[in-house]
Amino acid sequence: MSERRKVCVVVASRANYARIKTVMKAVRDREDLELQVIAAASMLLERFGTSVDVMERDGFVPDASIRLIIEGENPTTMAKSTGLGLLELPTVFEMLRPDVVVTVADRFETIATAIAAAYMNIPVAHTQGGEVSGSIDESVRHAVTKLAHLHFPCTELSAQRVMAMGEDPSTVFNMGCPSIDLVAQTDLGLRAEALNWFGGTGATIDPEKPFVLMMQHPVTTEFGRGFDQINGTLDAVAALGMQALVFWPNVDAGSDQVAKGIRQFREKGRDHGFHFFRHLPAEVFARLMAHSAVMVGNSSSGLREGAFLGTPAVTVGSRQRNREHGRNVVGVGHDAGAIADAMRDQIVHGPYERDELFGDGTAGRKIAEVLSSARPAIQKELHYDVGRLMAATL
Amino acid sequence: MSERRKVCVVVASRANYARIKTVMKAVRDREDLELQVIAAASMLLERFGTSVDVMERDGFVPDASIRLIIEGENPTTMAKSTGLGLLELPTVFEMLRPDVVVTVADRFETIATAIAAAYMNIPVAHTQGGEVSGSIDESVRHAVTKLAHLHFPCTELSAQRVMAMGEDPSTVFNMGCPSIDLVAQTDLGLRAEALNWFGGTGATIDPEKPFVLMMQHPVTTEFGRGFDQINGTLDAVAALGMQALVFWPNVDAGSDQVAKGIRQFREKGRDHGFHFFRHLPAEVFARLMAHSAVMVGNSSSGLREGAFLGTPAVTVGSRQRNREHGRNVVGVGHDAGAIADAMRDQIVHGPYERDELFGDGTAGRKIAEVLSSARPAIQKELHYDVGRLMAATL
Amino acid sequence: MSERRKVCVVVASRANYARIKTVMKAVRDREDLELQVIAAASMLLERFGTSVDVMERDGFVPDASIRLIIEGENPTTMAKSTGLGLLELPTVFEMLRPDVVVTVADRFETIATAIAAAYMNIPVAHTQGGEVSGSIDESVRHAVTKLAHLHFPCTELSAQRVMAMGEDPSTVFNMGCPSIDLVAQTDLGLRAEALNWFGGTGATIDPEKPFVLMMQHPVTTEFGRGFDQINGTLDAVAALGMQALVFWPNVDAGSDQVAKGIRQFREKGRDHGFHFFRHLPAEVFARLMAHSAVMVGNSSSGLREGAFLGTPAVTVGSRQRNREHGRNVVGVGHDAGAIADAMRDQIVHGPYERDELFGDGTAGRKIAEVLSSARPAIQKELHYDVGRLMAATL
Amino acid sequence: MSERRKVCVVVASRANYARIKTVMKAVRDREDLELQVIAAASMLLERFGTSVDVMERDGFVPDASIRLIIEGENPTTMAKSTGLGLLELPTVFEMLRPDVVVTVADRFETIATAIAAAYMNIPVAHTQGGEVSGSIDESVRHAVTKLAHLHFPCTELSAQRVMAMGEDPSTVFNMGCPSIDLVAQTDLGLRAEALNWFGGTGATIDPEKPFVLMMQHPVTTEFGRGFDQINGTLDAVAALGMQALVFWPNVDAGSDQVAKGIRQFREKGRDHGFHFFRHLPAEVFARLMAHSAVMVGNSSSGLREGAFLGTPAVTVGSRQRNREHGRNVVGVGHDAGAIADAMRDQIVHGPYERDELFGDGTAGRKIAEVLSSARPAIQKELHYDVGRLMAATL
Repeated sequence: MSERRKVCVVVASRANYARIKTVMKAVRDREDLELQVIAAASMLLERFGTSVDVMERDGFVPDASIRLIIEGENPTTMAKSTGLGLLELPTVFEMLRPDVVVTVADRFETIATAIAAAYMNIPVAHTQGGEVSGSIDESVRHAVTKLAHLHFPCTELSAQRVMAMGEDPSTVFNMGCPSIDLVAQTDLGLRAEALNWFGGTGATIDPEKPFVLMMQHPVTTEFGRGFDQINGTLDAVAALGMQALVFWPNVDAGSDQVAKGIRQFREKGRDHGFHFFRHLPAEVFARLMAHSAVMVGNSSSGLREGAFLGTPAVTVGSRQRNREHGRNVVGVGHDAGAIADAMRDQIVHGPYERDELFGDGTAGRKIAEVLSSARPAIQKELHYDVGRLMAATL
Repeated sequence: MSERRKVCVVVASRANYARIKTVMKAVRDREDLELQVIAAASMLLERFGTSVDVMERDGFVPDASIRLIIEGENPTTMAKSTGLGLLELPTVFEMLRPDVVVTVADRFETIATAIAAAYMNIPVAHTQGGEVSGSIDESVRHAVTKLAHLHFPCTELSAQRVMAMGEDPSTVFNMGCPSIDLVAQTDLGLRAEALNWFGGTGATIDPEKPFVLMMQHPVTTEFGRGFDQINGTLDAVAALGMQALVFWPNVDAGSDQVAKGIRQFREKGRDHGFHFFRHLPAEVFARLMAHSAVMVGNSSSGLREGAFLGTPAVTVGSRQRNREHGRNVVGVGHDAGAIADAMRDQIVHGPYERDELFGDGTAGRKIAEVLSSARPAIQKELHYDVGRLMAATL
Repeated sequence: MSERRKVCVVVASRANYARIKTVMKAVRDREDLELQVIAAASMLLERFGTSVDVMERDGFVPDASIRLIIEGENPTTMAKSTGLGLLELPTVFEMLRPDVVVTVADRFETIATAIAAAYMNIPVAHTQGGEVSGSIDESVRHAVTKLAHLHFPCTELSAQRVMAMGEDPSTVFNMGCPSIDLVAQTDLGLRAEALNWFGGTGATIDPEKPFVLMMQHPVTTEFGRGFDQINGTLDAVAALGMQALVFWPNVDAGSDQVAKGIRQFREKGRDHGFHFFRHLPAEVFARLMAHSAVMVGNSSSGLREGAFLGTPAVTVGSRQRNREHGRNVVGVGHDAGAIADAMRDQIVHGPYERDELFGDGTAGRKIAEVLSSARPAIQKELHYDVGRLMAATL
Repeated sequence: MSERRKVCVVVASRANYARIKTVMKAVRDREDLELQVIAAASMLLERFGTSVDVMERDGFVPDASIRLIIEGENPTTMAKSTGLGLLELPTVFEMLRPDVVVTVADRFETIATAIAAAYMNIPVAHTQGGEVSGSIDESVRHAVTKLAHLHFPCTELSAQRVMAMGEDPSTVFNMGCPSIDLVAQTDLGLRAEALNWFGGTGATIDPEKPFVLMMQHPVTTEFGRGFDQINGTLDAVAALGMQALVFWPNVDAGSDQVAKGIRQFREKGRDHGFHFFRHLPAEVFARLMAHSAVMVGNSSSGLREGAFLGTPAVTVGSRQRNREHGRNVVGVGHDAGAIADAMRDQIVHGPYERDELFGDGTAGRKIAEVLSSARPAIQKELHYDVGRLMAATL
């Protein structure tokens, strides 16, 4: 029987797969670790590109697949989908008996994974803790930190925040973000064929000419405003008159409102020069980021991979509010004129210098090392010097 | 149509009912608030005294009842029961449309409630945040703090910890613990009939003679050790040769192991002078605490209500580790001899002075006032002076 | 307190709403009955036209709404969605305390409703029992019959089949199908505006010219073949060169494969003269049926309402296999040529005579009468003369 | 990779394990079949003897374990537990990919299994179809028949009933009941030690002297009457003044009421000569049946294994109403006097002749043969000669 330490990674969305993939590779490559993979949620859905197929082509065949997205894409169904995850993950954990469970970022699948493992006395390793943003993700991310036994924040400031919340400093490891590894390892050349390989619908994009990259998700805490919000950005992009690559939104509450905005934009015939994608492999997406004249929307990619790639980015609305970023990012509200102005300024500026704020491309290997060696206590304790903290609170 | 603000309290265990009851009364008594009650989990189970009946006799008829305890009382079922709560609470919240949801303490029902409401953009009010203890409760309590929009910690130190974790100080209100209100309002006279009213099994207790009060729950993070742990305490109590009132454990993982220890103790005929209860109304329990020669086990009552009542208490094991307490509490490990020694010392010492560490009996009314007036932002933000915090971390 | 008998109708899809609506009206109109409505499943989903809004405009505001569709539209998610229904319906039944629960036809929501009520000792009334068809619906329909206490089959033959399965004849009432009531009460005039009111996408339809009506759903027991199956029908319709109104498929396993066929058909630009709808109110759909040159696909509407309206219909594949029908229906396989030939023959034939096989338009009122007066035994028993049955089995 | 046909047996209670065990053995022993085992529900619960441990000692280590019993033991929780099974079984079926699923008898786990597999287009094999009884089991059993693709009824009359409900005769196989195999293969000698091996509580039983065997479960369709019902039987047994072996009830709705009756009986000190068991291995139970002076209660064992063993049995109340049985069974109501009289008559009569009504001890092997060779159609169809059936209905 194997004496290897079993590391179980729960992968629940296309975005999170990109942010944990190099850790999965590094775990698989170590003699002393055994990788277990659970695919869940939108990884399994066709309208999100059935990302599980991409993952399988990368050699990661899931040990279990859990369908847990309850249709509706509203606040109610997000809560209920969390519940479905919590009902099923324990059964699968009982079958797989992992020694440590890895959960990524700040989604409802993330907290379901953390709660399931924590109640089952399985150590929880969490990536991307300590970052700040808008949306319900902000609350969920920090709640997961309080449930996790090992922390892999991606920046020094994030690491400080994790410790400030009372986590034991000996369990906090800033190794950078594995998503940067992926970008750093990718050949960033952009061939016309690449774009056509991955389908999508709409105008043909000429990669030799400048193009806009747009990705905007719903903000759950502003549920009901997604339709107006996407319209502001679409109007701004249309005003520029450039080629544009537009992505459909993720599965969060309000997704259908954002999608409705895009559909109506198309039905009105305003999509000249626009091409629409549901999903691209992370490596292809990185190439697009590296070559886009400007990126717009509210995806954290603009801040995260964008810093390393130097992509000029315009972040719209509150979803990335307060999130740490480099000089490549300019934040604006939902006014179409303001968005268009900021985009023009960024296009004029052109690419930024590489910034290793979110990592230098070695995160996966280093995180795997810690997963191999760390033995955190199951019983957590707050680590505070309360007197000094009292002075520090605002 | 009502313009009153709807306050929905989710009551999921006998212990938590005692810790929120005076808030419920105060909400019900206010003109500008409407009380909604959801009864869940062990509140509905006969083997925990069907506490919902007690609550109904107090005039709180639930608007909905949710059965969510999956049998097994182990780490797996605790996680899954959380999931069941998350599946059902959103449907009920949709029906009741509360303006604020109140969740109590640190149980799996507590975090299920917090996640459901937070994803649904309903403000979450949380009591007992910032306390520290052992068991998985420790992680869950702080995770709920990160999901909550209003905080009602019960001590000043707890309030400081909540703020240290980054919560907005304008949302943190130390009003004391509502459980102290209940104790303060109770006639603490102990009549023999009172004991007999509530059944239980075993020897008849003479309230004129000294007796021991014992309540010991499983420690989920030490799952598998509950049988040995209860035996240590039972041996200690038996060694004293006094009358003893012993409570069956709560529904947490490991409950059956603790219960097995008690059953075997009885089957061996070692239970001379022991009387066993499943459940008592909080007011009766307070009377027992006020009159017991010593309280032993790992219930937080010994620390909380015990401080106000001055009950000599011996806390066993890690479940209350690091929890704030007054001078009435002595902590020991699981060694029967050490437990017995500590109990003897406490009996000799006799009752302690009243300590208002956990409140002065006015919490319910004050919390209802805040529930009426506060309008916290749905979008949470960390409140940190990061530079000063960096210096403060150990 | 009300002495009225509470009749709870669970409405879970646009199709089933049309088939129970006149019963709901009749129940609401009776003095001695109180109507309760639970909206569930695809009734709540935008991509199925958010039928709950239509229902609310008809004056039926749901007492509870249950989101239970797990995304994926495959055999696994159909089974799991059944489970979600079974987890939530009991809680809602406890809140509403119905005296009888009405469940419609043969879907997964239907059996979830029947099991929940049956275990809770609430009498179950079932419509459309005893019909035969293909797909998993065939098994589910008869299983529901075995769980139901009152049966409202829609034809005499169906009633005989229900009794042949051992149901007590005193609980079997053939009142016709409420869907026929709706058709009989609808003004069947077709105005051009009507078509435009309800959106959809694609070519403008001229109601003065002949058009094809196409509705084809996946066949769950032939999961994996939906893409080829829809292509056969689309090819046939395209070959006719007429205007066509095409509906997107329902939520059953395989839905995405059928939808994919339609999407690709459009992307290839083969949709000249085609208009696509997600959902229409039943009354508008009846008008379309009354005026279409031919109806094609595998919806049971062609057989059921089609008989009454005399709509020439071509039924494709196995989904309606063996289902009772009038002379207006011709069945074919999935070969495009055969489908086109059958459609041409039906167009040439033109409208059929009214056939009251599925009812005469009085079902709703009669069923409400039975719901008011019947008091079926909760404990079911097989009603067989076993000796005679032995001889009758094939 | 294995070419063997995968047979997945879902075992969900101690009783059902005894009724499928020899099938499991025969499947395991065949070269062309691969056995998969899912343990669920009360198989995993300590208060039902953690029967999964017994099964593991028999060499059947489960491929998955599913905890699905929601506490409460009332009609609501039975329905919800069905839902939990339906949520989890599909995930496990996806992992195990069985070629056929075997489901036993008539419990909520039985129908959850049947629905999950049927929706997933996995053939369902069902044992004990066509029997009749009281309780909700009666409805569930026949509903499962309508979902199943292969039928293994245990008597000729049951087989006829299954066909009368429209099942294809080529899918109906009366091989007898596997529970009879177990009895036939067991050494029926009863040693005193055997009784003591298995614990339980209460008086010591002398196997050389006559004893009563009592097993009475709740009747779900008579929920609320279980307390009175068990009292009638306990009074009757007490009136006889003999040694008695009494079993605690199963997990069905009303279980706590039955258990309460037993508990009060003990607390009143009326249990002289009574010994109480939670669970015994089927083989030991068979020995007790073979040697008991009379068996009383409402377990189907008295009818089923009792026929083969010739055990004098008194069946109380409606739970076994109309169930086929041999001459060894006498049915009475809940009157204590009538029960006691019937028991005295049976004791006087003594053991009956062996009756192979429910099988001759070869069922397991024969069923495994069919599981190996049968390839039933996934799309079910009613098999009726409707004209003849119309004449046959009462």
